[in-house]
Amino acid sequence: MKELVLPAINKFGSGCISLLGEMAKEKKLKKALIITDENLNKLGVLNGVYTSLENHNIAYVVYDNVHPNPTITNVNEATALYHDYACDFIVGVGGGSPNDCSKAVGILASNGGDIKDYEGFNQSNHPAPLTFLVNTTAGTASEISRAYLISDPDKQEKLIFKDINALPYCSFNDADMMINLPASITASTGMDALTHAIESYVSVGAYRLTKELSLSAIKLVFENLVEACENGKNVEARDNMIYAQTLAGIAFANAGLGLVHSMAHALGGVYNLPHGLCNAILLPEVMVYNNKKVEAEYAEITDYLYPGLMMTTSEKAVYLIEKVNELSIRVKTKTPLNELGVSIDGLDILADKALEDGNLPRNPIQPTKKEILEIYERVY
Amino acid sequence: MKELVLPAINKFGSGCISLLGEMAKEKKLKKALIITDENLNKLGVLNGVYTSLENHNIAYVVYDNVHPNPTITNVNEATALYHDYACDFIVGVGGGSPNDCSKAVGILASNGGDIKDYEGFNQSNHPAPLTFLVNTTAGTASEISRAYLISDPDKQEKLIFKDINALPYCSFNDADMMINLPASITASTGMDALTHAIESYVSVGAYRLTKELSLSAIKLVFENLVEACENGKNVEARDNMIYAQTLAGIAFANAGLGLVHSMAHALGGVYNLPHGLCNAILLPEVMVYNNKKVEAEYAEITDYLYPGLMMTTSEKAVYLIEKVNELSIRVKTKTPLNELGVSIDGLDILADKALEDGNLPRNPIQPTKKEILEIYERVY
Repeated sequence: MKELVLPAINKFGSGCISLLGEMAKEKKLKKALIITDENLNKLGVLNGVYTSLENHNIAYVVYDNVHPNPTITNVNEATALYHDYACDFIVGVGGGSPNDCSKAVGILASNGGDIKDYEGFNQSNHPAPLTFLVNTTAGTASEISRAYLISDPDKQEKLIFKDINALPYCSFNDADMMINLPASITASTGMDALTHAIESYVSVGAYRLTKELSLSAIKLVFENLVEACENGKNVEARDNMIYAQTLAGIAFANAGLGLVHSMAHALGGVYNLPHGLCNAILLPEVMVYNNKKVEAEYAEITDYLYPGLMMTTSEKAVYLIEKVNELSIRVKTKTPLNELGVSIDGLDILADKALEDGNLPRNPIQPTKKEILEIYERVY
Repeated sequence: MKELVLPAINKFGSGCISLLGEMAKEKKLKKALIITDENLNKLGVLNGVYTSLENHNIAYVVYDNVHPNPTITNVNEATALYHDYACDFIVGVGGGSPNDCSKAVGILASNGGDIKDYEGFNQSNHPAPLTFLVNTTAGTASEISRAYLISDPDKQEKLIFKDINALPYCSFNDADMMINLPASITASTGMDALTHAIESYVSVGAYRLTKELSLSAIKLVFENLVEACENGKNVEARDNMIYAQTLAGIAFANAGLGLVHSMAHALGGVYNLPHGLCNAILLPEVMVYNNKKVEAEYAEITDYLYPGLMMTTSEKAVYLIEKVNELSIRVKTKTPLNELGVSIDGLDILADKALEDGNLPRNPIQPTKKEILEIYERVY
């Protein structure tokens, strides 16, 4: 049996954030806890959120201390604010970190206890308060999924949650909130979306419907990411990257991911590196590794992107990997791990952690620790 | 601004209906009003629904008197049952008729009054009771949209409603419930899905995300409809038609439709003909009419379905129309209106009604009454 789970309402287009206050009003909501990060708040990205709520006389409290790779402390601090100020709904604003944190806060707000109690699949009993998630990048797709990751700094690992009670009610995807996103973040989050699309296409959980969404997402990334990086004010390119990450997000939230994410979560958890960047670095090498099993699927993607190529299936698969690698170079996400503060001695621990990651079972091949280590070494 | 609105949860795959009782239990629901039609009930299509509810000790009352093209009387009768038996949720089971009726009943159950009070866009104040819609065809996509049509027999017309408060909570799409669907219904509902996909692709409300969904849906129909009609027990073909109609449904529910639907609603409203059949009959001729404006879009669809054709844009557009016509002949939906009891003298009234239909504004060209009449005459 398969499923397609996503927020019931998803808003797109320049200025769509202006609808937030009206929607909250219709739901008779009184006070929002806004969860974001300090940088976004300082840059004024949230102005549209504040204005929309104020225009409808809806009060709000802001928690803007979410770290990249949000921590258990972030979740606890924000949940305390939610209760202390008697909030009745949640607005997450950000990339994956504030939005993942928002889902965790929602679960704690409705269920109490310790967030670790809810690790895994559908472990909570009560739906989170109504949650609106505002997407400020175009990559993680956190705003449309019921999954979230919280870092446990004590153990240097990421806890994975997937809970229908954490599903947001509405996502907002307003390109106007992204036009000042730096090229480096546009690139890493865009490569994150590409990773979602490619991993979900070859995931053992993929089915025809999710595969169609993955294909569309891959095409949109190849057509729009370079432009969105090099000319960030191009709203059409931004919108198309939003659609790409939304389609990829729906696909992976329902079909699952694979080895790239397992290895990226280990890297991000230990070295606190941007998730999209980790994915971008690992994607081509994991594709080389998976190619022995899913060559035909990679060739299908090539056929979809570049119809009519006179190549064998093997050549088409290799061609796709080359194109992914070229794109990563072009948008400057291809970076050796040794330039990112990763210790060569630490790779062994990363391999152990990747092996335990919850995304691994959906990878088309189950790798050995030695194979994972070799992939880390190749991108080191 | 654009939006993507659909049920938060959508279940697919053989046997997925068995999850209904458990989901209702998790939501602490006690008694369902099941809304369906007599034929489905007699054929035993609902057995899985009953078993799943009984397995979780959830009570239910059945209203199985929904007519093809559900009427205001159907809505009122079912709403009375909902209140009389103190139900707390709704399970619609069917093609578009029971599922449209279910949405109307939900709005009346929560809002009171007369269903005509809610005609149009978002006219109600309160969300319907939690509604699970079970799809027994693969065509209308009623189970995933907030829109519904109710016939007013006095006026021989269909009232159109689009209301966020009518959005179902969960759709079920279980191919096992469709394997005995007769070829004629498989064909007409499948052609309905194709019409949704093609009309939404060229709708003035289309945007890049919905266009991607429409393309995937068109491809899936061309690849699977003949097999689903000719070998109804082929679960893969049934599943692929389900995915097609889901993708087409998401696309049209958010991008809108056009002239085929306007003319089909008039036909169905006056002569009580199956909606999918009306669409199938009208689609090729409306494409011929729209071609002067959307030739390039039709050619894009051809490129997507048949990459690498050495044809001009005009030739590709004509080729698509031919392929649609061929498919309709192959699955036996191509039928002259004069064989369906439609009066030649009644075409004038149909043209008037089509001009007033709520789908017309999204058609790429706004036709005159004379032009509509000519299309009816060509398919007469």
